[in-house]
Amino acid sequence: MEKPTLPKGTRDFGPAQMAKRQFILENIKKVFQKYGFQPLETPAMENLTTLTGKYGEEGDQLLFKVLNSGDFLKDVDAEKLESKNSKGIAFDISEKGLRYDLTVPFARYVVMNRHEITFPFKRYQIQPVWRGDRPAKSRYREFYQCDADVVGTDSLLCEAEIVLMIKEVFKRLRIEDYSIKINHRAILSSLAELCEAKGNESSLFVAIDKLDKIGEENVKEELRGRGFSETSLITLFEILNFKGSTQQKLEFISRKFSNTTSEQKGITDFKEVLNLLNGYGANEAHVEFDIALARGLSYYTGCIFEVKINNVSIGSVSGGGRYDNLTGVFGLPGVSGVGFSFGVDRLYDAMEELKLFPQEAQISTQVLIAHFDEDSKRYGLKMLQALRDNSIASEIYPDSVKIQKQLDFANKKMVPYTIVIGSEEMKSGLLAFKNMKTGEQQKLTIEKILDTFK
Amino acid sequence: MEKPTLPKGTRDFGPAQMAKRQFILENIKKVFQKYGFQPLETPAMENLTTLTGKYGEEGDQLLFKVLNSGDFLKDVDAEKLESKNSKGIAFDISEKGLRYDLTVPFARYVVMNRHEITFPFKRYQIQPVWRGDRPAKSRYREFYQCDADVVGTDSLLCEAEIVLMIKEVFKRLRIEDYSIKINHRAILSSLAELCEAKGNESSLFVAIDKLDKIGEENVKEELRGRGFSETSLITLFEILNFKGSTQQKLEFISRKFSNTTSEQKGITDFKEVLNLLNGYGANEAHVEFDIALARGLSYYTGCIFEVKINNVSIGSVSGGGRYDNLTGVFGLPGVSGVGFSFGVDRLYDAMEELKLFPQEAQISTQVLIAHFDEDSKRYGLKMLQALRDNSIASEIYPDSVKIQKQLDFANKKMVPYTIVIGSEEMKSGLLAFKNMKTGEQQKLTIEKILDTFK
Repeated sequence: MEKPTLPKGTRDFGPAQMAKRQFILENIKKVFQKYGFQPLETPAMENLTTLTGKYGEEGDQLLFKVLNSGDFLKDVDAEKLESKNSKGIAFDISEKGLRYDLTVPFARYVVMNRHEITFPFKRYQIQPVWRGDRPAKSRYREFYQCDADVVGTDSLLCEAEIVLMIKEVFKRLRIEDYSIKINHRAILSSLAELCEAKGNESSLFVAIDKLDKIGEENVKEELRGRGFSETSLITLFEILNFKGSTQQKLEFISRKFSNTTSEQKGITDFKEVLNLLNGYGANEAHVEFDIALARGLSYYTGCIFEVKINNVSIGSVSGGGRYDNLTGVFGLPGVSGVGFSFGVDRLYDAMEELKLFPQEAQISTQVLIAHFDEDSKRYGLKMLQALRDNSIASEIYPDSVKIQKQLDFANKKMVPYTIVIGSEEMKSGLLAFKNMKTGEQQKLTIEKILDTFK
Repeated sequence: MEKPTLPKGTRDFGPAQMAKRQFILENIKKVFQKYGFQPLETPAMENLTTLTGKYGEEGDQLLFKVLNSGDFLKDVDAEKLESKNSKGIAFDISEKGLRYDLTVPFARYVVMNRHEITFPFKRYQIQPVWRGDRPAKSRYREFYQCDADVVGTDSLLCEAEIVLMIKEVFKRLRIEDYSIKINHRAILSSLAELCEAKGNESSLFVAIDKLDKIGEENVKEELRGRGFSETSLITLFEILNFKGSTQQKLEFISRKFSNTTSEQKGITDFKEVLNLLNGYGANEAHVEFDIALARGLSYYTGCIFEVKINNVSIGSVSGGGRYDNLTGVFGLPGVSGVGFSFGVDRLYDAMEELKLFPQEAQISTQVLIAHFDEDSKRYGLKMLQALRDNSIASEIYPDSVKIQKQLDFANKKMVPYTIVIGSEEMKSGLLAFKNMKTGEQQKLTIEKILDTFK
């Protein structure tokens, strides 16, 4: 018999991992709900017509396609088959694919339900997505995304609330050392104009986005290769290297940009977001203007965000931004929205590295009832029922085995308390109540035991 | 531009449906956890070698297969391609499929992790599954299953606890009129022997399983066609038509079976389950012995369950049973287990029909802050923060629009309370706090408003 395996790049989440994942997801969910976001779920499979063309050519390559049911080859062109043209045939034998992200299905949902939706529409969505990427550390073929978006308003309150939500999630997760980096597409445009990058904007953005990783000299080298002049590079790095608070940075670039034709929308938007945060009574802690932040996704048109946890190997755990025309591709133009996403797997890895998962989160069963014989097992059923009636997650060891085996089970399952019942306990009604961590044991009535959980 | 659509048999769950679904799932989860079950999640895609051959030929046909990435036709036999042999080629161009249920992935997980798992292992799993069935009312191509299983023990306590869990879930969902039908494979075997069905058992079970739907005469007709003698049919219906309590039924068949060679394990197991329920202080309400219950799945070997909600169009919402060799197919024999599953979609439909969803479950945001102008909007931010600091889910209308539009938004989103702020409210600090259901409005300070939520 062949040993069963998992498909490459996919994972099982057993009880220990699930407890930690649920700790993260429950906290994120609570914050989303507290801010008025409502849940949405879309199907794992979407029509390929919905998915293709939305993620660039590379993205299209990474889509998992689902084979049509039944006699899928029937209507396929025989010549195509003979030529073994995989690319050409893929769409003939497959009309559905697994979702690649939650954003495109959300846009599709908004367009299909535009007449029923109450705008501004705040939705959150926590579901797995699938990408046929080459698996690597922290890169999986199935992973969860955790999105929150508001569509149908261009109010900058939404940007401010995204900052507040990120702060609240991190507070709940006890992550302290992190930066919410913000930039604005209009600022990037002005920067491009200033650096004479017309027609070459994306090379500029791609290069400066790597500044952190490859350093100033390599970015310059790359831009020289792309035809940027020395004057442009001087201007660029004068701006990139400017040190100061977010306010000082904004004023500095404002002066610089006054020589360009572009409007100052990016800067005024940014200042308004800070101003609004202030209105909530929140300070600017963790918020950082980062003009080098570009983020690849072409649909962003306003503020863009990225959140980095400092001093861990994989820092970037969240990102997002404003888009003015996400639903346009499905025939509904002019719906402005802003959203962001938490990468659960990366948050998980970072929290493991920082040892931030609380022990309590990993406890499922609170009490295990162990027993010496059939009589005490039966006696234990009523005790078990009393615990459960008081909403205490508890169980009884189902088989009649040695007491040590039952206690080992409790330890392995991280059950913090056991009740051991034998003939003496049945007679006196005083049960042996043991704290499995400290080893401390008391003889207590079931009522007293229930009291300790109140 | 083409209008986007959903793949056949799949659905979006918008906020209103999600709220109801979460109400069901949260309650089921809480009960599972209270009984010591721990969460497991497995990937959507499994190797086809894991999935095929486990669901019968029909099941294999219904598996969604995922096209291999890259040049999937490269190594396919040219002749096979020319002959357009879809069935023959499917496994050449596809090595992964979407999971068809949660039981086979669970068995695969247990086998792969047998050295790390602490047995008896109680796991629950709530995830979607996919089947390429022809879509129909209450039959979807993507739907959730909600399983709980214990493996590594043959203790009948597990059967008793399944009954208790079903009762507790239904109590929480406020479903009152339902039956937990129980039978035992050994009882069915004895029945088959008594009816001289040797070699023809499954015809017998399939036929009696339909008794409810097609009636006595049609079952008899079907069995005559299958070669059952009139004597057998008389014996059969003497048993099927016996009226009485579960105890009386068990004694009746016990007498009947004493003429057969088969052991009485089914009956003693059943009596022990009732006896154990009694040990928990639970009565037999809702529990019903149903000798006609057969359930199709061939891997069951002990007790089998099915739960029906009475007086609704789709009654059967849960089922399960004991299996002695689920993991055997993956090379790990002799692991006895018992499990059951809730059909979330059917529970949902039944609860809608019975109007059982509480209004509270559908409330997400508790308070909406509405405002007359930019100043009062800004003033509202601090009020909003105060609400959220007190864990009250709340939001502010993000745009500056007419007050009526803001209140309409609150009504459509089912927000139960609004706070309306204008210049007068800002001056006095007395905010207009409105109950959107009753229309009642009070002028209160933010502190007093916070108090009403305590």
